[in-house]
Amino acid sequence: MSLLLEQLIEAFQVLPGVGRKTAQRMAYHVLERGRDGGRRLAGVLAEAVERIGHCSQCRDFSETEVCALCAGAGRDRQQLCVVETPADRLAIETATGYRGLYFVLQGRLSPLDGIGPRELGLDLLARRLEGGEVAEMIVATSATVEGEATAHYLAQLARQHGVRPSRLAQGLPLGGELEYVDRGTLSHAFGSRAEMKD
Amino acid sequence: MSLLLEQLIEAFQVLPGVGRKTAQRMAYHVLERGRDGGRRLAGVLAEAVERIGHCSQCRDFSETEVCALCAGAGRDRQQLCVVETPADRLAIETATGYRGLYFVLQGRLSPLDGIGPRELGLDLLARRLEGGEVAEMIVATSATVEGEATAHYLAQLARQHGVRPSRLAQGLPLGGELEYVDRGTLSHAFGSRAEMKD
Repeated sequence: MSLLLEQLIEAFQVLPGVGRKTAQRMAYHVLERGRDGGRRLAGVLAEAVERIGHCSQCRDFSETEVCALCAGAGRDRQQLCVVETPADRLAIETATGYRGLYFVLQGRLSPLDGIGPRELGLDLLARRLEGGEVAEMIVATSATVEGEATAHYLAQLARQHGVRPSRLAQGLPLGGELEYVDRGTLSHAFGSRAEMKD
Repeated sequence: MSLLLEQLIEAFQVLPGVGRKTAQRMAYHVLERGRDGGRRLAGVLAEAVERIGHCSQCRDFSETEVCALCAGAGRDRQQLCVVETPADRLAIETATGYRGLYFVLQGRLSPLDGIGPRELGLDLLARRLEGGEVAEMIVATSATVEGEATAHYLAQLARQHGVRPSRLAQGLPLGGELEYVDRGTLSHAFGSRAEMKD
């Protein structure tokens, strides 16, 4: 096999979930039917890797020092929603009518992997809370063990700065049949049942 | 979302089997944890798209006018194995002890998709057979309807030039339990049963 082709197949394996077989398929596909797309991908990728950094306020990916959302007018600066990833931020932005600001951790507390408060930019977050502008911090980390630990830590940080922490509701997913919901969720939802009002 | 990030997510979708969600994950992954790999991928991809062409003899991908396998000594030039894709060629090269040459169709006859003899380089193949060097043409197209049609066409082409066509054996896969083999394969294998010799 051509050396350059071999290098291309190896290079594709930097992508998540791409092993040798998939990388090979990608390389063949690009060379056989997608040279223009491949050329474009190479160009955009090279540019993105150099030029996309992190917003100095929310840590989301941004080409500019402050991202469009943080810089934009018309957002409620008293609410700060803390998410793990840019994808989570996008999901909330798409699904809800939230008009406040965000803070992107780019991960969650995981001491075993060497991810502590510093790696998540919590010093930056603390300075933000010190500013006094934020009234409510909505903790939207995932409902996993690590996400919960992170949420706990964040809530303490908020309280230290006189900011009210809140957490996304947990319970049955909408449209979820009781029979197929996992035990943990069902047990939690049962215990956290709320009174029905007229 | 940053415009450049949006462009990167779109660009990734040129890859086979990559939709918007996967493209997004790839972009985030590269930016968050794989900038060096991303830089390398961009470079190799740009180079590959420009420099990798087709071998003028076998149509496999090659950086040089004639690929290493076609140019190499020590291959039996009387045998020519016709495969659909470079991946098929690689599979045969890895699994068998075949020492002849190859011809890569880069597809199979599919009139509805506009893929005819010309798109598969069969004019080049015909000239090769005219040369008189090839004695046996091993047709290793896939065992699908289109692969069979292609095989039929290739066999005729071979006979026209006085070359003996052969086809890979079809039957039960090794280690395959009868119970789980599909009906078509089982029926074919039963009909093509061979006498057992001492």
